[in-house]
Amino acid sequence: MKPTEEIIRRLSNYRRVLYKLKSLGFIKVFSDNLGDALGISPTQVRKDFSLFKITGKKKGGYEVEVILERLNTILGKDVIQNVIVVGCGKMGSALMNYNGFASEGMRVVAGFDADPSLVDPEARIPIYGLEDLSKISQQFDVKVAIMTVPESRAPQLIDSLNEAGIKGILNFAPIELKSRNDCLIHNISILLELENMIYFVNNLDDKIVI
Amino acid sequence: MKPTEEIIRRLSNYRRVLYKLKSLGFIKVFSDNLGDALGISPTQVRKDFSLFKITGKKKGGYEVEVILERLNTILGKDVIQNVIVVGCGKMGSALMNYNGFASEGMRVVAGFDADPSLVDPEARIPIYGLEDLSKISQQFDVKVAIMTVPESRAPQLIDSLNEAGIKGILNFAPIELKSRNDCLIHNISILLELENMIYFVNNLDDKIVI
Repeated sequence: MKPTEEIIRRLSNYRRVLYKLKSLGFIKVFSDNLGDALGISPTQVRKDFSLFKITGKKKGGYEVEVILERLNTILGKDVIQNVIVVGCGKMGSALMNYNGFASEGMRVVAGFDADPSLVDPEARIPIYGLEDLSKISQQFDVKVAIMTVPESRAPQLIDSLNEAGIKGILNFAPIELKSRNDCLIHNISILLELENMIYFVNNLDDKIVI
Repeated sequence: MKPTEEIIRRLSNYRRVLYKLKSLGFIKVFSDNLGDALGISPTQVRKDFSLFKITGKKKGGYEVEVILERLNTILGKDVIQNVIVVGCGKMGSALMNYNGFASEGMRVVAGFDADPSLVDPEARIPIYGLEDLSKISQQFDVKVAIMTVPESRAPQLIDSLNEAGIKGILNFAPIELKSRNDCLIHNISILLELENMIYFVNNLDDKIVI
């Protein structure tokens, strides 16, 4: 069985919970504990772990340190993952300077923008023109891009990113882009999320389905 | 049947596609067209529409203008939806100044921050201290908040937001918060999305599941 996005998402969540438990002094943990924390069944936890050959002892549970090490390797936390930001407007520059990346083993190595007035190769995190996408991406072995460009620019940019060796795009433009065989795309649509929330908030008699 | 989040998400997507079709001169549209555009079956489209009493003609399809008007009403686009941003750091201020809200009938009326040095009630979009949450939220009839605060601050803020009359929170802190009966929470975790993408990009032999 190949892992799905949902399984990988759960691994991320196990990892977060485990770090919290570790900071509380936990040495062992049971599938019941992790199941409770994530709101899923202990069977699901054991299934997920066994898919990645993470094993525990029948009565002794799992060793926190051991699973964490495995999860870090699986999720690529053992090396720094270089990322680029394409589109350096307000949102793009906020993301470029987001402090949360470092502690998660991610690093924004460069920004890119079509607007020459934003280009600044001397900045702490340099900003280049789009013509440098391939060069820089290859130089830093970048495979993942955060795309914060206007809706109209987003679709055509995918080809350029792909040519530059990018295999995964986190798309912030308010347009639902579909993954392709050669490129995984996740869409984060703030507008869509708000619109959805506004509907339920305005229709509180409708059951809130999570 | 009560609409689920998934159905409301599809309504948002129908609406976006319909505006594009309208700009291309379309007057009528068939459930097949919308199904193709969203990658779902025409039966699903008709089911969604009939749930909201949107009807078409057997052979004539749906009138673009008529559905759009209905969808706008359902999604609350006929009135401006006031929103607040809680946490005015880099990400928060980027969101406060995001241009995309206006065209979607949303307006950020205020920001809030615990840091007094960020408070500025005279700004174009004023920033207040957290003690003003209730007053301002009630003044502008705000029910939805965008929360861009550090992970450690997020959980306890929910109570204050709830007391201020907020019924929906879009959470950007990298912590998965669960919806409560009195408050719908959507989590947007940029770190989790990137982590997930990095896994699949580093394991391209694993099937990419969308």
